[in-house]
Amino acid sequence: MRAVAIVGVGMHPFGKFPDKRLRELAKTAVDAAVADAGCKLEEIEVAYVGNAYEGILNGQESIRAQVVLRHAGLSGIPMMSVENACASGSSAFREAWAAVASGLYDVALALGVEKMFVGDTDRTVQAIATSSDVDRTRGTGFTFTGMYGESLRRYMGKTQTTAEHFAKVTVKNRANAVNNPYSQYRQATSVEDVLNSRTIAGPLTLLMCAPIGDGAAAAIVCTAEKAREFGRKPIWVKASAWVSGLPRKGEDLEAVPSAAERAAKQAYEQAGVGPQDLEVIEVHDAMAPAELTAYEELGLCAKGEGARYLDEGHPYLDGDHPVNPSGGLSAKGHPVGATGLAQIAEIVWQLRGEAAGRQVTGKDGSGPKLGLTQNGGGHIEGDAAAQLVHILAR
Amino acid sequence: MRAVAIVGVGMHPFGKFPDKRLRELAKTAVDAAVADAGCKLEEIEVAYVGNAYEGILNGQESIRAQVVLRHAGLSGIPMMSVENACASGSSAFREAWAAVASGLYDVALALGVEKMFVGDTDRTVQAIATSSDVDRTRGTGFTFTGMYGESLRRYMGKTQTTAEHFAKVTVKNRANAVNNPYSQYRQATSVEDVLNSRTIAGPLTLLMCAPIGDGAAAAIVCTAEKAREFGRKPIWVKASAWVSGLPRKGEDLEAVPSAAERAAKQAYEQAGVGPQDLEVIEVHDAMAPAELTAYEELGLCAKGEGARYLDEGHPYLDGDHPVNPSGGLSAKGHPVGATGLAQIAEIVWQLRGEAAGRQVTGKDGSGPKLGLTQNGGGHIEGDAAAQLVHILAR
Repeated sequence: MRAVAIVGVGMHPFGKFPDKRLRELAKTAVDAAVADAGCKLEEIEVAYVGNAYEGILNGQESIRAQVVLRHAGLSGIPMMSVENACASGSSAFREAWAAVASGLYDVALALGVEKMFVGDTDRTVQAIATSSDVDRTRGTGFTFTGMYGESLRRYMGKTQTTAEHFAKVTVKNRANAVNNPYSQYRQATSVEDVLNSRTIAGPLTLLMCAPIGDGAAAAIVCTAEKAREFGRKPIWVKASAWVSGLPRKGEDLEAVPSAAERAAKQAYEQAGVGPQDLEVIEVHDAMAPAELTAYEELGLCAKGEGARYLDEGHPYLDGDHPVNPSGGLSAKGHPVGATGLAQIAEIVWQLRGEAAGRQVTGKDGSGPKLGLTQNGGGHIEGDAAAQLVHILAR
Repeated sequence: MRAVAIVGVGMHPFGKFPDKRLRELAKTAVDAAVADAGCKLEEIEVAYVGNAYEGILNGQESIRAQVVLRHAGLSGIPMMSVENACASGSSAFREAWAAVASGLYDVALALGVEKMFVGDTDRTVQAIATSSDVDRTRGTGFTFTGMYGESLRRYMGKTQTTAEHFAKVTVKNRANAVNNPYSQYRQATSVEDVLNSRTIAGPLTLLMCAPIGDGAAAAIVCTAEKAREFGRKPIWVKASAWVSGLPRKGEDLEAVPSAAERAAKQAYEQAGVGPQDLEVIEVHDAMAPAELTAYEELGLCAKGEGARYLDEGHPYLDGDHPVNPSGGLSAKGHPVGATGLAQIAEIVWQLRGEAAGRQVTGKDGSGPKLGLTQNGGGHIEGDAAAQLVHILAR
């Protein structure tokens, strides 16, 4: 396999854009990634597009990749739409990485894009529920917030974690997002405000949950040779790990390792690093409290120790392992198909030292050298349907 | 890139199965492919699933791969749903091939599955229309049959082709399908019956159009070493070509080569063969007359000579270049996501000499040695959104 460089990333801000169509969100991200890479649009040889709900919400199914990329000026090249629910963006990134690593193509585009704000929350919530096994969940009142709530209540019962800890994650991530121009929320908040916001599915309150929104993110990956040609300092893909969940039923979920744990383990092995080496991390906090279990699944701390890890300050912007400097899903926003690629973009900016206002300093003060993204998608039999972990380095 | 062998293929028959869900169709095809390969289900390392309309028609979006494969007994491994409209099945095959060719995995599964018969033709027709750019076609009366009709009228105006020629394609393919146990239609027909059947979009009549139906097809691909281990005589993937259409507007469509032409050219170059070397061919005749232009796009005959090529007998089962021995889309059926993999399955059976009743003999009478599949998907700005051509050899 060949070394793969990320040479360009770009985003459309996350938020509610009632006047923009999917293709317009996509074009902004693609244009920005191409400009960032210093290449020409025509140099892209293959493209993968991650999107989850455009068919159900806006009626465009089947050829989403071609429709949005034609608007961005791309045609003729091989294109494919890929899906893995909330991990659709990193699934597109994975395929683009493999396309270059394999030797099949020298320059590949990965795009994630989603338009979830359609002015009707019920319709959007129903669309989100299609990321479960609908034959089993339909008519059962299943929602992702309900599922997270149940899982968090169980977690609280087994550990010393309190609702205040969950609120603290939101407070940390909202503070980070203040300085992220792509973020849907850009106001700081307090533990008190988070706990006093409307209960969605106890212990989850409104401010702990990722908002409904629209957005896009893109990355251009290429060979070392092409990176030199484009003149952009490359960020290297050191690991690309991808798994689906194993069935985890009943109370004793830990009898089976989670998909996130298994993906992280694979990624560390591929990159030849461990969790202690990570200097900047983006995790899948669709509900802010999930960040605590992500610390554990990534091996940053022991099982059940997520709250302590937070209390000790490690995952803060000035901690030794900053998590979600972008604001994460709960503060930056979570337009499903775009999320995985927004995580990639954030880590690229951090590794380049371009994350003004939210830049982490790295172990030796010269900026971070090694970063990780963890992106989970969907729910099936007690676990994520897909988990992808990427490790990036400058 | 490593050599990639197809060691197992399997199908669920194409047809209308009101009592079966998507996962049940999928399981039958996966079980059959695994049995055919002589491997264990647990030996599959990665899986790609092609499907187009399950979200819109039956409410399962986002994690279609995991839902259907969990039912077939697969979990934990990396899985992804991929889409390219009617070319979703060969897109899944393409990614599975690349996964093995690249060295990332030794054994990969590609599955195509679709459930289009929902007891409401209007809903299914609307779902099919989502394989166009809906922002441009919505409210314009666009249908794929209408688009094919217009294109065929133009073709008739430029060539000596008549409606009888179109009917002859149907008659040929229906005759082939009589001996295909997986075919949706298994009755022979006549030119007269085809021309007298209801007009759908002149010159297209009902019997020229692929029916609405359900079905699934799967293939297991692996390395040469694994093929030896499984003990199955391999069919080799000699070429995998994949393109999207370029904009082709107005009357002079031939000013821009079609996506099918470009994909075929790439495939011949990869395999080091030409159209005259092909001994068995499956093409994308979603409407039977499209087979005539496919002859031309694949280089079997010159532009505008499709009807003559048919009249001379070349594409018949006993001709020198048999086309659609399975019955093709118009007779075998066209459950969209399954079609590309059903083409692969047919060519594998033909190359192994296992296509009882519809077996082609090959140039030297010992059975065909080289076959091709051509699978197109979607419509955007005057061309297919995706075209995939694969060349297989024993």
